[in-house]
Amino acid sequence: MNKKAIILLSGGLDSAVTLYWAKSKGYKCYCLLFDYGQRHKKEIECAKILAKKAKSLSRILKISLPWKGSSLLDKKINIPISVKVPRCQGVKAIPSTYIPGRNIIFLSFALSFAEAIRARDIFIGVHSQDYSNYPDCREEFYRAFRRVISAGTKTGVEKQEIKIKTPLIQKTKAQIIRLGAQLDVPFRLTWSCYQGGRHPCERCDSCQYRAKGFAEAGIPDPLLIK
Amino acid sequence: MNKKAIILLSGGLDSAVTLYWAKSKGYKCYCLLFDYGQRHKKEIECAKILAKKAKSLSRILKISLPWKGSSLLDKKINIPISVKVPRCQGVKAIPSTYIPGRNIIFLSFALSFAEAIRARDIFIGVHSQDYSNYPDCREEFYRAFRRVISAGTKTGVEKQEIKIKTPLIQKTKAQIIRLGAQLDVPFRLTWSCYQGGRHPCERCDSCQYRAKGFAEAGIPDPLLIK
Repeated sequence: MNKKAIILLSGGLDSAVTLYWAKSKGYKCYCLLFDYGQRHKKEIECAKILAKKAKSLSRILKISLPWKGSSLLDKKINIPISVKVPRCQGVKAIPSTYIPGRNIIFLSFALSFAEAIRARDIFIGVHSQDYSNYPDCREEFYRAFRRVISAGTKTGVEKQEIKIKTPLIQKTKAQIIRLGAQLDVPFRLTWSCYQGGRHPCERCDSCQYRAKGFAEAGIPDPLLIK
Repeated sequence: MNKKAIILLSGGLDSAVTLYWAKSKGYKCYCLLFDYGQRHKKEIECAKILAKKAKSLSRILKISLPWKGSSLLDKKINIPISVKVPRCQGVKAIPSTYIPGRNIIFLSFALSFAEAIRARDIFIGVHSQDYSNYPDCREEFYRAFRRVISAGTKTGVEKQEIKIKTPLIQKTKAQIIRLGAQLDVPFRLTWSCYQGGRHPCERCDSCQYRAKGFAEAGIPDPLLIK
């Protein structure tokens, strides 16, 4: 059995749990990190340290999204400080932190990497509970992407299809944190805050989701222990 | 009507015809060029000149595919010099010039660009006649990618879906050349050869497909006029 896996590792809590989950299943993990012009480099630094800590290989790709289109890329746009998903005409709106096409781009590179090194699985730590209403975190997007793999790649055509695995997709943040605790994920090395300060801002929606998750899991967040 | 379009422009003949086709339909064209470590820079130079000639905007993205996995990226692998598609166990094989995930990566960036600048159409000059058996040039791949757009992007969720247009997909190389001639495409500025010499090598399969297309169209290839 081919047990190589590509792990999309951001330095955040979810991708760290995903990495440790894949390791616990016996995969040899190749972490893929992206330097894509995010507001701060802290999460990339965390991702590098996490990959090393998990004794996994890592590769950083520098990509450019010069058209921006997101408050995470454009310092002129404020980052939202509420977890309440904004609504537009009665339906949940997509927040300004959405980056056009981001997960599609990340998966495309992971797919290329997987085909080239003959890995059969790609892991991504998305989840659709307690989330920011990003369209590229939903199950239906991953189902659609799987069809792209079977129709548009050499391995797909040759019926040696690469699989995208989303082990966290049905879990809440609290469940992810509990799973991470079981897997000994070093939470102190993860970074969720949209700001790149020395300490988490505790105000941005990413900090708030994290705080809510740790509180519900009944586990203290090591980043917040003073 | 929003008439902005993203054109994936490689510097080859097909993408040049696609650019001129989109222009003839009244689109304001934003050409997207990739410097992805191809064996030579000649096609990028041609693409830049073509975009300028067509009075279109262009943006070059540098991306890295360090895992290679293709004879077009890895100088240690020879480029095939036959148009005869190799066969494996009776079925057409995919040649060594296939680059894992290339068109998926290109489309992902085009999609991100389109969402950010509110363009509603992406043009790509693929065709599945007289082609090299690349899985990411087939209609079924584009159908699958369209579903990714509707499920995984903000514009898709908001029913303002970005469309991928493949105006050449059903055409033969000769038909593409005839269409290009009608549209006054400056063929002398296009580059198809996998090698980056001063003149086309006339041996690689890309050169051979081009020669066959010009011959069938009954049009001389300006690159080969001595």
